[in-house]
Amino acid sequence: MIVEMRKGATKEEVGAVVQKAKTMDLDVQLNIGTDKTVVALLGSNTGQIDKDIFAVLPGVESVTRIMKPYKLASREFRKKSTVVDCGGVKIGGERIIVMAGPCAVESEEQLMQAVEGVKNAGASIIRGGAFKPRTSPFSFQGLQKKGLELLAKARDKYGLPVVTEVVDPYDVEMVATYADMLQIGSRNMQNFALLTNAGKSQRPVVLKRGFACTITEWLTAADYLLAEGKNQVVLCERGIRTFEDSIRFSLDISAVPVLKKSSHLPVIVDPSHAAGHYSLVPAMAKAAVAAGADGLLIEVHPNPKEALVDGLQSLSISDFTRLMEELRTIAKAVGRYI
Amino acid sequence: MIVEMRKGATKEEVGAVVQKAKTMDLDVQLNIGTDKTVVALLGSNTGQIDKDIFAVLPGVESVTRIMKPYKLASREFRKKSTVVDCGGVKIGGERIIVMAGPCAVESEEQLMQAVEGVKNAGASIIRGGAFKPRTSPFSFQGLQKKGLELLAKARDKYGLPVVTEVVDPYDVEMVATYADMLQIGSRNMQNFALLTNAGKSQRPVVLKRGFACTITEWLTAADYLLAEGKNQVVLCERGIRTFEDSIRFSLDISAVPVLKKSSHLPVIVDPSHAAGHYSLVPAMAKAAVAAGADGLLIEVHPNPKEALVDGLQSLSISDFTRLMEELRTIAKAVGRYI
Amino acid sequence: MIVEMRKGATKEEVGAVVQKAKTMDLDVQLNIGTDKTVVALLGSNTGQIDKDIFAVLPGVESVTRIMKPYKLASREFRKKSTVVDCGGVKIGGERIIVMAGPCAVESEEQLMQAVEGVKNAGASIIRGGAFKPRTSPFSFQGLQKKGLELLAKARDKYGLPVVTEVVDPYDVEMVATYADMLQIGSRNMQNFALLTNAGKSQRPVVLKRGFACTITEWLTAADYLLAEGKNQVVLCERGIRTFEDSIRFSLDISAVPVLKKSSHLPVIVDPSHAAGHYSLVPAMAKAAVAAGADGLLIEVHPNPKEALVDGLQSLSISDFTRLMEELRTIAKAVGRYI
Amino acid sequence: MIVEMRKGATKEEVGAVVQKAKTMDLDVQLNIGTDKTVVALLGSNTGQIDKDIFAVLPGVESVTRIMKPYKLASREFRKKSTVVDCGGVKIGGERIIVMAGPCAVESEEQLMQAVEGVKNAGASIIRGGAFKPRTSPFSFQGLQKKGLELLAKARDKYGLPVVTEVVDPYDVEMVATYADMLQIGSRNMQNFALLTNAGKSQRPVVLKRGFACTITEWLTAADYLLAEGKNQVVLCERGIRTFEDSIRFSLDISAVPVLKKSSHLPVIVDPSHAAGHYSLVPAMAKAAVAAGADGLLIEVHPNPKEALVDGLQSLSISDFTRLMEELRTIAKAVGRYI
Repeated sequence: MIVEMRKGATKEEVGAVVQKAKTMDLDVQLNIGTDKTVVALLGSNTGQIDKDIFAVLPGVESVTRIMKPYKLASREFRKKSTVVDCGGVKIGGERIIVMAGPCAVESEEQLMQAVEGVKNAGASIIRGGAFKPRTSPFSFQGLQKKGLELLAKARDKYGLPVVTEVVDPYDVEMVATYADMLQIGSRNMQNFALLTNAGKSQRPVVLKRGFACTITEWLTAADYLLAEGKNQVVLCERGIRTFEDSIRFSLDISAVPVLKKSSHLPVIVDPSHAAGHYSLVPAMAKAAVAAGADGLLIEVHPNPKEALVDGLQSLSISDFTRLMEELRTIAKAVGRYI
Repeated sequence: MIVEMRKGATKEEVGAVVQKAKTMDLDVQLNIGTDKTVVALLGSNTGQIDKDIFAVLPGVESVTRIMKPYKLASREFRKKSTVVDCGGVKIGGERIIVMAGPCAVESEEQLMQAVEGVKNAGASIIRGGAFKPRTSPFSFQGLQKKGLELLAKARDKYGLPVVTEVVDPYDVEMVATYADMLQIGSRNMQNFALLTNAGKSQRPVVLKRGFACTITEWLTAADYLLAEGKNQVVLCERGIRTFEDSIRFSLDISAVPVLKKSSHLPVIVDPSHAAGHYSLVPAMAKAAVAAGADGLLIEVHPNPKEALVDGLQSLSISDFTRLMEELRTIAKAVGRYI
Repeated sequence: MIVEMRKGATKEEVGAVVQKAKTMDLDVQLNIGTDKTVVALLGSNTGQIDKDIFAVLPGVESVTRIMKPYKLASREFRKKSTVVDCGGVKIGGERIIVMAGPCAVESEEQLMQAVEGVKNAGASIIRGGAFKPRTSPFSFQGLQKKGLELLAKARDKYGLPVVTEVVDPYDVEMVATYADMLQIGSRNMQNFALLTNAGKSQRPVVLKRGFACTITEWLTAADYLLAEGKNQVVLCERGIRTFEDSIRFSLDISAVPVLKKSSHLPVIVDPSHAAGHYSLVPAMAKAAVAAGADGLLIEVHPNPKEALVDGLQSLSISDFTRLMEELRTIAKAVGRYI
Repeated sequence: MIVEMRKGATKEEVGAVVQKAKTMDLDVQLNIGTDKTVVALLGSNTGQIDKDIFAVLPGVESVTRIMKPYKLASREFRKKSTVVDCGGVKIGGERIIVMAGPCAVESEEQLMQAVEGVKNAGASIIRGGAFKPRTSPFSFQGLQKKGLELLAKARDKYGLPVVTEVVDPYDVEMVATYADMLQIGSRNMQNFALLTNAGKSQRPVVLKRGFACTITEWLTAADYLLAEGKNQVVLCERGIRTFEDSIRFSLDISAVPVLKKSSHLPVIVDPSHAAGHYSLVPAMAKAAVAAGADGLLIEVHPNPKEALVDGLQSLSISDFTRLMEELRTIAKAVGRYI
């Protein structure tokens, strides 16, 4: 941590900074320039120390953190890439894992049609929403427990593991009895009560990026899960909020290489929620695989025109089947397979 | 809702849109231009209908919503401005209400010093955090229930009502037994489980704006509270995330006049979390009052240098006292008082 | 264009809107709902009409434009994809065109080494900056005319066409005598004097996206070039400004499929300026090709450690050569070649 | 400047950083921590040194600049606040200066009505556009030289100085013969050719903030003007681009106190372009004065309904007159006058 003193700061002010640092067991090195004094604070946990502790002291101009605030999710903490096991399917290895299915579980017929379609096309994991966080209280909120039962039935019938979202900290245990992997949605990335409970469950967790959160904040949120002893966490980029209005969210494609460098956790991409329109999904899915993503999360509906939620961004089964063909050639081009 | 058909859309495609609209009891008017056909869908609840229902139909180019997705929070729903009663203090009337106190309750001594100071300076409501949502799991998380007890003690001693944040849907009832008003924080603006529970409590609620949410999404989230029958909701602007890095969040000052036009709910401003630095708080607080805010939420600490949380953005009691003097002259200049 | 009248707007107010529209030769259709009246204005050029003309009229609540403000750049105006000819190299065909070279021309030796390297690796066009728009007046501003002469020399020696930036409207003619294609940079996307002059030149133009401009604004800026009779325009996505701070600019990968749908112009991607760091360039370049880009603009320096400008984002020749190998397999996977 | 070495960086890599710094006459201090080495580079001009020079060196993890890249515009360079003289009117003193008039000069009658109105209401400077940078080439581009002549005529008739925009570097001299102060618009904030020429003119300059530029970039652009020897520069905040869509641009009200702290230049605010709607202008204008702005730039039209440009954001003369009354009370409340 670097504390820059104001021009003309007194010796006493510099001394108070040094004193404070020493009470926190930090090493201190003074850099006395012609213009101003800069104090370097060194220690193994300076990433977790609040900058304000020094910024409020008299004579301090600014405090710059050199170390990142996250720790357990960092590549420095764990050099080897983590492979997550979701019901026997490995995420983060050579194989690119495609998770597909409807945005919301609507009925047994709809779900089974979707799962049969995506399985035939080569998907490895079923996705489907039972609890739907909706921006308006007047919208369809999901089948809830009934939806979980249908997902479990689909797993048994088609032999693919299931990932589904949990929105309430008190539902974690219940959802974990039905699903092979829990998903924490974008709007809940900083719902710390939910993170803590999900961290305690035995299931792996997909942590979607908050749509207005930096990668640093995202990895710090992952630390909440990892701090509970869990190491089975998958990061999912799903688009960030920007000024551009031709799509719902701007897919931050550079998040893939940035995360591969900064973290040991596997990274998947959800092109459906970013695009908001089925016609844009294939290009974005292909870009994600080319950029190095370990998997994809894609919405597929047997009949998008009748979908209760997000029909516009859902691929039909035939569109998805065609996309999977294209993705296989891209995966091969980057030395992987689907 | 306006459905624009693609150039060259067939009669059958237009017919399917019309048919769908009729099954939803909407009035339909066709506008057949030389270039393309535009279908207007009219009805009193088109704001709550999902645009995708029409956007997925063949031949549709785009769907534009004219009506807003929120309803109960809108000025159209309720013309008269709502006045919220927080333990006898009226928010939304002629008086500008200042809520002040420490970011986090740290100890009895700290809280009592802060409350005495802000009361003497003219604050009307005590603010203080017992449950702290922190970005890192390694940071101080608040005194929790012990903090609530201290807040209740401060209320009894100084005779000012208390507002405090609730972060877990299952804590709503407990927090409501100690506090006069509940606060829902920025990171929880779209935590729908929390909104629904808070909506059911007897207490008024301050709903802070999600730092990356539009005003439309904010008012739609307010609908979650209002849908439970509550009409005692205060909106709090606290800064939005932008590219500017000289402050923590960019205070959206225009939210004040925009909300006054679009909604009947009172609007307050939190300059402390936006600024992130005490030296910027006074200018932003004065701007908020001049722009028409009904109140302010300001962090004050008896000794900012020793604060456990957000010390850098906290005013000292003497700074706060001086600011209150200035705010009184601004309030008077806009025909109000503090 | 859709004009929504306020609830309770009078007949006279509706009449004034209709009257205004008629003086502009627009077709008008009235949609009188139970709640409010909506007026649809139809005509072939409603995209170019200022919304404010109607928004200022009494009784008007809002005006929504259905047609896009751009015209000549739109896919509706020209169905067939445009192929741009840059000194014999075709941009927008089956072949993916890689333009590579140093950010700034620094010396003859540096430029020739770079060009020899990128040519050997398979680049089709030389890029190199002679006029450098720099954020600080104290930074190196480019070799200017001397740089142009060196670029022309490199073209003659290596037989590859040259693209270079022009920053001053009065330099267009001079730059056009040296370069095969002009580049308009991100900070000048809405420099209308420059656009108009560049539109008049005989050379094709690469129009980089303004880093805070929407795709709609970008295509409207392209209309400035096209309005001068030029149809040889290439669009270049180079990242947009967002809150994310792990990279310089967030590459908007979805711009590629969005532009392919909305416009007939070829689309290339500059991963170097978005990334700001060489280690991120390969993943982003591969993503761009997978997403359907017609070309790439990549910074390559024979010795990045000694570069005067943007060394950190420049690839070395060996890194670039390796990347070209990888790009070839991706290009093949999407049915194209380099 | 702080250079953080990678964990495990070799002595030779650290040595190369030190060596490089010494060739640039910088003082170096090594901070050898248990985890990693941090090199502090000290000198009076480290703000102007390109970070990449060190970031490209082997073994370097990151480079953090402590000093700001701007210099001449900084409060450190000049402690005393600058007062700008525009035709005898002082900007940056105790008096708050209101510049008002039409967005575009349309005709002699329109201009004279506007100027008479704003003068009567208490405006000190005439604003009016002769050259209009428009996003679409099919929109009205301003009366150009004819507009300048009318502005000069208005100055002679009403005795108020004139500020008007210059968009082309080659027009600077011509515009300067008619106007008392030049304005550089938001889209040209980083048009360095224009900045350099305007810096050479004898006239004071209003530099509007680029709508997607940070305050640091803005002050660095001001350095372009100041580097030419001019010290008569006024900064104008006019809203930044964010995700919020209820207004055109989000007015960054905190820019006022941030600039007052970082720079010696006067700061004015343009609420009209930020708001995009006349009904929001008064609240934003009052907020700006309360926050400490030295002046306002407000669009006023004698008949907004007939305006050729931006009618929706223009105040009528009666609205402006009423607003001036309110602004006077706010100015008084902050110890100033209009």
